[in-house]
Amino acid sequence: MMMGHRWTALVTLLALLVYFWMSLQVGQARGKCGINPPAMTGDPQLERAVRVHYNTLEWLPIFLASLWLFAIYWNELVAAGLGIMWIIGRLAYSVGYMADPAKRSTGFLIQLLACAILLFGALGKIAYGLVTGV
Amino acid sequence: MMMGHRWTALVTLLALLVYFWMSLQVGQARGKCGINPPAMTGDPQLERAVRVHYNTLEWLPIFLASLWLFAIYWNELVAAGLGIMWIIGRLAYSVGYMADPAKRSTGFLIQLLACAILLFGALGKIAYGLVTGV
Amino acid sequence: MMMGHRWTALVTLLALLVYFWMSLQVGQARGKCGINPPAMTGDPQLERAVRVHYNTLEWLPIFLASLWLFAIYWNELVAAGLGIMWIIGRLAYSVGYMADPAKRSTGFLIQLLACAILLFGALGKIAYGLVTGV
Repeated sequence: MMMGHRWTALVTLLALLVYFWMSLQVGQARGKCGINPPAMTGDPQLERAVRVHYNTLEWLPIFLASLWLFAIYWNELVAAGLGIMWIIGRLAYSVGYMADPAKRSTGFLIQLLACAILLFGALGKIAYGLVTGV
Repeated sequence: MMMGHRWTALVTLLALLVYFWMSLQVGQARGKCGINPPAMTGDPQLERAVRVHYNTLEWLPIFLASLWLFAIYWNELVAAGLGIMWIIGRLAYSVGYMADPAKRSTGFLIQLLACAILLFGALGKIAYGLVTGV
Repeated sequence: MMMGHRWTALVTLLALLVYFWMSLQVGQARGKCGINPPAMTGDPQLERAVRVHYNTLEWLPIFLASLWLFAIYWNELVAAGLGIMWIIGRLAYSVGYMADPAKRSTGFLIQLLACAILLFGALGKIAYGLVTGV
């Protein structure tokens, strides 16, 4: 780590900004329907905004851990590129879901593919290293 | 990393202990109102305790990633100090929210400010490094 | 970090795969009861699957941060062993909870014990290092 891995760090912070923007969408939906915390349900747009935000939260540990392990044990720039792909998938997921829950699939699959490559790529590289001792 | 960054590590573990204490508050609220899992709603104190816990969970990826990136790429002791500020904000948020959802703002803003400085500080320093090549 | 800590990285990715499997359980429960997103309630099996998934999400920041700090500041192989114990506890928790919410305790306590040793072990080692300056 140290001063290397700046691209991975940059993608991490951009992903967190997109995730933060999703929490603002929840606040906006609350403003429109007038439902205050601690209530999380009662209006379709609020429930969709909450689900977009929480589904992204659910995936953040998988994404961030796989991104960094891929970058550290294999290739930094490929990791950063897949990180950008994840962010784009998440944005598409949010826009789709807010329009209609049935339209959330495309964005979801893009982010799933990015995560799968990062996770299994890191897993394969690390397991290979442990077996071969390189 | 290695054996450096001990202050950042210490603040990380303290923040996680405060977060763990919030989950105990949920258990305590369950005990008082007699609502068992998997139900998450049905009593105002339980719903507030759940929201305090989950809102902190929502912010943990932003906080922890920004804290470590700020510490690694910029300044360890400033990061640790802002981490303590975040913990204090979270404690104020919890006490306020449990008393009255309208009283959650002060603590929330303190933790928001700490996170914003950590995130944009790290982002600025990393972007500057990438541009200047230092 | 760098190319060391491969066992910790391997356990991290295995834990995330178990966690991902829990999200598939939610999808499966949705399929059986026919309740679509954004709804998260309305069927006992769906609510249990959601709670198994979300309780694991709640604990991931505590587990992952403590695992890595224990591995970095103290002992890699002990950390990896406790990580395996956490994964086993989580699997037992999932199987128990899905059968009956009252049967979730054993698995929960196993993962709690693993997390507690990782967290307080790392905390003690780091605090000792700061005090003694070693």
